[in-house]
Amino acid sequence: MGGGDWLRHVPDGDNRERLVCPDCGFINYQNPKIVVGAVASFEDRLLLCRRAINPRKGYWTIPAGYLENHESVEHGARREASEEACADLALDGLLAVYNIPRISQVQLIYRARLENPQSVAAGDETLEVMLVGWDEIPWDDLAFPSVHWALEHWRRVADQGIFPPFGNPEGATGDY
Amino acid sequence: MGGGDWLRHVPDGDNRERLVCPDCGFINYQNPKIVVGAVASFEDRLLLCRRAINPRKGYWTIPAGYLENHESVEHGARREASEEACADLALDGLLAVYNIPRISQVQLIYRARLENPQSVAAGDETLEVMLVGWDEIPWDDLAFPSVHWALEHWRRVADQGIFPPFGNPEGATGDY
Repeated sequence: MGGGDWLRHVPDGDNRERLVCPDCGFINYQNPKIVVGAVASFEDRLLLCRRAINPRKGYWTIPAGYLENHESVEHGARREASEEACADLALDGLLAVYNIPRISQVQLIYRARLENPQSVAAGDETLEVMLVGWDEIPWDDLAFPSVHWALEHWRRVADQGIFPPFGNPEGATGDY
Repeated sequence: MGGGDWLRHVPDGDNRERLVCPDCGFINYQNPKIVVGAVASFEDRLLLCRRAINPRKGYWTIPAGYLENHESVEHGARREASEEACADLALDGLLAVYNIPRISQVQLIYRARLENPQSVAAGDETLEVMLVGWDEIPWDDLAFPSVHWALEHWRRVADQGIFPPFGNPEGATGDY
């Protein structure tokens, strides 16, 4: 199956159209994807990564990526920071749950402390990394709306012990 | 493709084995699935549903199910309660994020108020519904460990304004 030849069909016992192979009946359930990431701070500086891959190659983001099978969300958030920025994180609360419905994405973003500020470095999917103060954040060159949201939300609870996770800003869809 | 004939192969630019169709090269990425649900209360009673489907047919659960594409997590939690128990919920905080790594499942469970206690009823996937006080919960007949966790966690924050979401109890995997 090339992915373009699937039939749309409601399987028995289901209530929605799914992609079904016309040859063998295999049902290709498509589910929302989970992105895990973190706003990681060291003292008053934040970890940002410049993307080496599309979408939004060359723009700045927080370390984040797709959760893998058989992985906890916490493990995934730390793994992505390790892969993208050679960063070792201690998670410190779920900062936000964002929905990007157009692309069926749910983002779980943690507040984290960066444990190895001296040794952060660009991973394979990153052009460069930096630790920046709040006033040095390149707001016009951030990769995605949700990166803006996460940084702004982080600032509101940076010094707070417990807090409930944020969601999308009112009315925001995350499209860019 | 019948699902059993996929090849395991690391695609270019990836770092993990994926299922690839040997005929056309279609990559069947398999991702963790998101379950959304709620512990819904009316006064001092909680909404439970007896499952009409496997796994764990005949056992009691909270309303919960798979998030659909293009759906927010909050919408999904309310939709599942509507489909399974004809229940109308007002969500009131993210109660928990649970990981069940063996089956690559992430559960987002909300605290909710039941808005229509008079009209809850069994949906297609439910044998019966009930509203029970804490001492009437059928602990030995709950469907999944995470149902236990969610009820216990709900009790700890039932009267609390803000709280951070719970995770798995220490060391618990969610297997049953």
